Amino acid sequence: MSTAPLPTSLSEVPAAAGAVLDDFFDITLPVTRAISPVVGQASEVVADFVRLGGKRVRPTFGYAGWLCGLSSPDRRPPIPEQLGSDALRVCAALELVQACALIHDDIIDHSDTRRGRRTVHRLFAAHHRDAGWSGDADDHGVAAAILAGDLALAWADDLLGGHTPARRPVTVAPSPLPAEVSAVWSAMRTEVLGGQYLDIVNEVSGDETVESAYRVMEFKTAAYTVARPLELGARMAGAPDELLDDLRSVGHDLGIAFQLRDDMLGVFGDPQVTGKPSGDDLAEGKRTGLLAIGLRRADEQDPAAARSLRAALGHRLGPGELARVRETLVDLGAAAEVERHVDDLLGTAVVRLEHAAIDEDIRAELIAMAGRIAHREA
Amino acid sequence: MSTAPLPTSLSEVPAAAGAVLDDFFDITLPVTRAISPVVGQASEVVADFVRLGGKRVRPTFGYAGWLCGLSSPDRRPPIPEQLGSDALRVCAALELVQACALIHDDIIDHSDTRRGRRTVHRLFAAHHRDAGWSGDADDHGVAAAILAGDLALAWADDLLGGHTPARRPVTVAPSPLPAEVSAVWSAMRTEVLGGQYLDIVNEVSGDETVESAYRVMEFKTAAYTVARPLELGARMAGAPDELLDDLRSVGHDLGIAFQLRDDMLGVFGDPQVTGKPSGDDLAEGKRTGLLAIGLRRADEQDPAAARSLRAALGHRLGPGELARVRETLVDLGAAAEVERHVDDLLGTAVVRLEHAAIDEDIRAELIAMAGRIAHREA
Repeated sequence: MSTAPLPTSLSEVPAAAGAVLDDFFDITLPVTRAISPVVGQASEVVADFVRLGGKRVRPTFGYAGWLCGLSSPDRRPPIPEQLGSDALRVCAALELVQACALIHDDIIDHSDTRRGRRTVHRLFAAHHRDAGWSGDADDHGVAAAILAGDLALAWADDLLGGHTPARRPVTVAPSPLPAEVSAVWSAMRTEVLGGQYLDIVNEVSGDETVESAYRVMEFKTAAYTVARPLELGARMAGAPDELLDDLRSVGHDLGIAFQLRDDMLGVFGDPQVTGKPSGDDLAEGKRTGLLAIGLRRADEQDPAAARSLRAALGHRLGPGELARVRETLVDLGAAAEVERHVDDLLGTAVVRLEHAAIDEDIRAELIAMAGRIAHREA
Repeated sequence: MSTAPLPTSLSEVPAAAGAVLDDFFDITLPVTRAISPVVGQASEVVADFVRLGGKRVRPTFGYAGWLCGLSSPDRRPPIPEQLGSDALRVCAALELVQACALIHDDIIDHSDTRRGRRTVHRLFAAHHRDAGWSGDADDHGVAAAILAGDLALAWADDLLGGHTPARRPVTVAPSPLPAEVSAVWSAMRTEVLGGQYLDIVNEVSGDETVESAYRVMEFKTAAYTVARPLELGARMAGAPDELLDDLRSVGHDLGIAFQLRDDMLGVFGDPQVTGKPSGDDLAEGKRTGLLAIGLRRADEQDPAAARSLRAALGHRLGPGELARVRETLVDLGAAAEVERHVDDLLGTAVVRLEHAAIDEDIRAELIAMAGRIAHREA
């Protein structure tokens, strides 16, 4: 068990959450190797995916909620009283839910790369080819990645409670979680899966409305990435209802802003910085907020632009075509509308944070993080 | 919340577990409908799959473990003391893990039917076609079923702890689970996923050894279907170590017998009774225990039989071909060897049960159930 000190600032959360995940894998991977060496190797793929993965946005928001709750003058310490190590562990568990979401999403989207590396199903397919196994390699890759995602989801729940598939707990004696924390965790997982399903249905049913795109953002991103993590951490600390309301509102606004930025980066981003091919969302026919706003504007102003936007969906675009889509979205004013919306959401979130009953340190950190989220380049 | 009385005999467990699952869905489905009506419909598919599903083998073994533990003269009541309603709920949660396992397994195996009905991915594909949606219907079916299985797995953990995605818990105030119960749950899920992965690797790598087939049975079936459920229930009741050892041994033997019977039904079973096409395992190239034993015997005795068995793998068989495979497995003595092994396993399980320190009622029920498991026809 790592004895690293608990984070005192949000910038320390990614490393601290990573250390918790390392501890979990140190205990868990030997169990998988004992089942069979090949199972150990597959589990290592899941562990690597998590270890190398991402910016730890959800654990950071989770821990921010914890620090907000702790600093609230009106907090009601939960029974049993939760420790900082419990809170950090719960936050780290969010990364395992995210690993499942991404591994399965990449299968669903037929994505080849993620964060500049091969996606998990492609990795297993390549392994199948290298080993000269029989049958269809891509098919095997999908099968293995379905199970790998399931494993990550099961492990997320293990880590949430501080348990492992070995007889050893992650922490020496994890306290049972308050029921309200489990309820938030439960709601969050159903919401993100519901949002993902709605997303694929919007895609195939050709639902182009701005309302539908925002509904997906609300559940697939805003609740899952920001609002629920903030609430999870805050409830670990016994935050009062007023603060929970503040954090839900901030979480919603920042979550939508986060996703709208993602939509913008998907079309206008630099693949060298984002780690994924630009135009991917278009190629996959994703019904993003940006696209919905673009189509609504085009239908109102410019039928030719509407036709060319729709024609660009659902297949890989050459550099020239992508440049034309970018130009169309700019000319229609869609890009500017999204930027305005991001600024508005950031503004309301910051105002709400300015008035929340929390310590100045965590307030300043959250406001800075909000700005980075809304204006990030990857 | 259902107020049905707790089961006092194992035959009452399927209905009682079903009632708990109904309660869970009554609380949970409105949450999914609130996300969006289409999400509600997809969740209804998951709920129907669980409601209509199976023989509730795992909850029944789980509750048997609980009754064994309760009846043990040496039991150490866990702190907090668990109630029968908590135990039943934990047992019912096993059906949601199983729903995920089957939904994802059916994707992996490209199965069209399950229990005489369309598999979940085929159901979603059909819905795609009926709705006239764009894109590939089968592809959409797989995507939706991946998410449906994930939802079942997330719900399994919710129900385990007595939580729901709504603010309401399943039971009025679920007690926190003893850490040892969570540890068993955790081990069980990693084991079944490990076993499933090993199964698909054995298939594509052409691993034909009896040892490998038994290793898959051990983790994918024996631990998951019998041994861990028994242990889970027993630990809920604070069973002593000696009884836990007895149940682990019984669970292992009955679990392997259960799977060997499954292997036999897969080749020799009546599709009208089993609900799935006979010869499915062969068509999928599954490396079952029966097949491994058949191949080992063929390699030793009859090279022509070995060639014809191998030639029958991995594609759909006509009635004549299937009849020949059956004949070959009988002539080689493989079918008889499997039957002998089932009888031996049943014998050791019954002897161990006869000597366990448990009440006569549950002992008699478990012994009867063991016989039914080993000699079932579906």
